Amino acid sequence: MALNETDTMNFTQSIWLDKNTQEVTVIDQRKLPFEETTQTLATVDDVCFAIKDMVVRGAPLIGVTAAYGLYIAAKTNFDLSLAYGALLATRPTAINLKWALDSQMNVVSSIKKEDIEQALLNNANNIRDEDINMCSQIGNHGFHLIKQIHEQTRRSVNILTHCNAGWLATVQWGTATAPIYKAHQAGIPIHIWVDETRPRNQGANLTAWELSHAGIPFHVITDNAGGHIMQHGKVDLVLVGSDRTTAAGDVCNKIGTYLKALAAYENNIPFYAALPVSTIDWSIKDGVNDIPIEERSNEEIIFMHSYSGERISKSMIMPANTPVKNYAFDVTPSRYVTGIITERGICKANEESLKKMYGR
Amino acid sequence: MALNETDTMNFTQSIWLDKNTQEVTVIDQRKLPFEETTQTLATVDDVCFAIKDMVVRGAPLIGVTAAYGLYIAAKTNFDLSLAYGALLATRPTAINLKWALDSQMNVVSSIKKEDIEQALLNNANNIRDEDINMCSQIGNHGFHLIKQIHEQTRRSVNILTHCNAGWLATVQWGTATAPIYKAHQAGIPIHIWVDETRPRNQGANLTAWELSHAGIPFHVITDNAGGHIMQHGKVDLVLVGSDRTTAAGDVCNKIGTYLKALAAYENNIPFYAALPVSTIDWSIKDGVNDIPIEERSNEEIIFMHSYSGERISKSMIMPANTPVKNYAFDVTPSRYVTGIITERGICKANEESLKKMYGR
Repeated sequence: MALNETDTMNFTQSIWLDKNTQEVTVIDQRKLPFEETTQTLATVDDVCFAIKDMVVRGAPLIGVTAAYGLYIAAKTNFDLSLAYGALLATRPTAINLKWALDSQMNVVSSIKKEDIEQALLNNANNIRDEDINMCSQIGNHGFHLIKQIHEQTRRSVNILTHCNAGWLATVQWGTATAPIYKAHQAGIPIHIWVDETRPRNQGANLTAWELSHAGIPFHVITDNAGGHIMQHGKVDLVLVGSDRTTAAGDVCNKIGTYLKALAAYENNIPFYAALPVSTIDWSIKDGVNDIPIEERSNEEIIFMHSYSGERISKSMIMPANTPVKNYAFDVTPSRYVTGIITERGICKANEESLKKMYGR
Repeated sequence: MALNETDTMNFTQSIWLDKNTQEVTVIDQRKLPFEETTQTLATVDDVCFAIKDMVVRGAPLIGVTAAYGLYIAAKTNFDLSLAYGALLATRPTAINLKWALDSQMNVVSSIKKEDIEQALLNNANNIRDEDINMCSQIGNHGFHLIKQIHEQTRRSVNILTHCNAGWLATVQWGTATAPIYKAHQAGIPIHIWVDETRPRNQGANLTAWELSHAGIPFHVITDNAGGHIMQHGKVDLVLVGSDRTTAAGDVCNKIGTYLKALAAYENNIPFYAALPVSTIDWSIKDGVNDIPIEERSNEEIIFMHSYSGERISKSMIMPANTPVKNYAFDVTPSRYVTGIITERGICKANEESLKKMYGR
């Protein structure tokens, strides 16, 4: 990868080493799309804050950022065990976070003290490169789906996506967006329907921002509109990410994904989830009954980020005491999932196909 | 009806004659739920403004308000033909508007000049009372559905509703909310899931406000969440309104209704549309292909009403130049509609049942 170093935000990568200072640098995603600013992560505290306060978000990116966090600990003579604990506590439910931290601690266990800093940097770079590579492979496999539709229709391919499974959530390419970027680069005409994705509006805030910087045509729609446009032939393909996938191919993703899957199914539109092996939970088969669904803060529904032209603020869009329920994810049963796009290829959403794909 | 006169907002009626002044008075719905204020409609200009600027909204209430508008014209010596034209132009697509205005002009055509003012008031009161009566009948019929579920489950009945088909959109009772209010008054325990209903959030702003004043337990959820809660047995019944219903029972309602109908169908949850005969378009059978779907302003998606604690303002929630598409309604094909609750009773969502119900 030629992307170890970059001196500025390049609108395709979420974390990088500054060319001059070698400092770990990230985009401050809290301010997107209204302000495009970066943050330098120079201390363990900086890294903890960035993860906890959602300067960075998305399970893969959280993992990579935490891995660099331990490198920064070594570089700044911060106790590695303390750093491990502090970083792990930032987002206790993100599975990639612990995996990346453990990978780093493993590296450290068997080498000389003077080599630790460089080894942690190398391993963090490896974790980052592996993520980039997996997303790129997902893109290559998913690309063929888009190409096929274009060859059949000979017109722009309309793709609906939900939430942000883009490069902002990973390092590069994203998961659901990787096939989109690959198709765009190959010159296939595409148009994206971006669900705004209440309550946090990651579609309108992040996916739309990514697409506009890539020059890919898109429209933001309310989460309510997807059924209507599918009913009227305006969608050729639905592409979503996954936060957790069962061994049987049930897909747990951002709340609202299930409704889009139902509409796609009813209207004979292919519905694919794009995901790396790390999201597959081989221990669970029945997603609807066995995946606990996080309920998040009422504030996410009652307040929205808004922009005055000068500053970003929190706007109250319903009375502060409104009783609300904020379910963060839902589960799409495998019967509504046309297929799963992984770094190894595309397979059916069932246990046999998934196991075969991963040689289990 | 004992509701000709009232001296103050009573939280069950959207338009009334002030007890002291006999002036037509309405709730300023633009400011709900943040501010509870009324407006006196003393001139034809006041009425035009109220309809055009959405001080009042909802097809039935628009019709009733316009009817009173012609009474106000006579009372203030405003030319009736000019008033008719001005009122008709306020919201040209609302079908009840023209119907109510024509009904008033019909009354005027055959009576002495000195009787016109009183005749217009009487007919406006009749139109209002007829609306109240139809909604009340819808409530009585729908009430039995809720009662039946309660008798089977012996617990609180969970009802999901979308948008605002409440008394704020009619005069009293509402359509989809009428069975809810009747059940609550009869002491049946109920709990309502209120879809916030982007882009204009009529669920969070209006339905939630109605329910909280009625003391009915509810939670506002994002439009994305309905599928998840249906999948997990948290919904017993879906009740929605209708803006236009085909002779075959297809239901055109606020965007997002179709997605909820699909989820209800998949999870074996009864899905009912509550509507008066005036929304049935006997000339159309195929709702998906024959009902044109209004596309509304981008601003509705890009900006949201918010409240600072002192004042209501418009907050920009995504960049002003974001490409958006704002489809306002969608069509739920009759095969997903369990039944239609009308002022005459409940029938199946098909042509035979609807025609039989109305003796056509």
